[in-house]
Amino acid sequence: MSTKGEQTREKILSEARLLFKQKGFGATSINDLLNASGTTKGNLYFHFSDKEAVALEVLRREQQSFYRFLEQAFSGRSAAAGLEYFFHYALKKHHQSGFVGGCLFGNTALEASDTSPLFAGFVREVFAEWIKIFAEKMTVAQAAGQIRTDIPADHLAEMVVATIEGGIMQSRLQKSATPLQRSLETLRQVLELQVNGEQRQDDA
Amino acid sequence: MSTKGEQTREKILSEARLLFKQKGFGATSINDLLNASGTTKGNLYFHFSDKEAVALEVLRREQQSFYRFLEQAFSGRSAAAGLEYFFHYALKKHHQSGFVGGCLFGNTALEASDTSPLFAGFVREVFAEWIKIFAEKMTVAQAAGQIRTDIPADHLAEMVVATIEGGIMQSRLQKSATPLQRSLETLRQVLELQVNGEQRQDDA
Repeated sequence: MSTKGEQTREKILSEARLLFKQKGFGATSINDLLNASGTTKGNLYFHFSDKEAVALEVLRREQQSFYRFLEQAFSGRSAAAGLEYFFHYALKKHHQSGFVGGCLFGNTALEASDTSPLFAGFVREVFAEWIKIFAEKMTVAQAAGQIRTDIPADHLAEMVVATIEGGIMQSRLQKSATPLQRSLETLRQVLELQVNGEQRQDDA
Repeated sequence: MSTKGEQTREKILSEARLLFKQKGFGATSINDLLNASGTTKGNLYFHFSDKEAVALEVLRREQQSFYRFLEQAFSGRSAAAGLEYFFHYALKKHHQSGFVGGCLFGNTALEASDTSPLFAGFVREVFAEWIKIFAEKMTVAQAAGQIRTDIPADHLAEMVVATIEGGIMQSRLQKSATPLQRSLETLRQVLELQVNGEQRQDDA
């Protein structure tokens, strides 16, 4: 594929990601994609069979990027410090976007749950993986005395993911960090999260 | 207005509510509304100026119904028993719908936050009212020793609403009660919710 072709494909995908996050998949038309990416219909259909194919590639990349973020959070840190890292940078990422767009997985969950088995299955997998990793890390944190032990780690993990998604929803609705920030702060308190002496690597 | 006309209007609104909940506002066309309600374009435009007017009336009714549910939850009960009532029947209502459609306010928040100031403003108000009432009741519950007192009631209320919305999202995605049910159970535990000897009026 030519460099020009690759650039066009990348431009379509990056603009599609923004449009899907802000307007949703259903409300984004092929014309929206053409206008935003400054490409022709012929070029778009050279790279993708249809809008669904664009969305699947956008979701796949978002998934890869999210899994890398999860890995990065827990790499070379205690389980509790990894959770703290995740909380901190999740808030920061959404803050940097001005709380526009929210979480593509959460948006897709609400848009696709009752209408698109393909997209719903995709984000179900992402959430399952997220909860699984959090549950594993929380089990380790419990053994290390870094979070409360009276509630099973997988139940805590499920609640934490639900709270983060709901917090992103509220921060995006209010265009303010406060709801997500405060929900994360309350989570730290109810988890009894103890990050003992480790640096959070705060570059904020 | 004739009884026939009222019936048509009601039919349009009830079908629109289902379509907006399942597909979203953007993906629901006027033709979808006509097909689902079995009405003509002329009839629909006799009752509503456009799709947005239909959606606003659907949202207004959903708001009224939700405020009644909130009032009912706390009426004639302790603050803690009211919270328990809300948790119990929120789960039950979503269970009865087969976890199809989810929460219209949450769906609208994700769909409208970046695209429709009118709809976003509307649901912002609903969430603010919900959090305000929960915070008031939690303050009372704290004074009565029915929930933990070491975290401010308004912070707990914000987190609880975020967790419920995230829990509904996960239950809808999985078409299973488990995520919401378990998130509510974990909330009870982390809130240290004590409903002393009061009947939950469980008619499940």
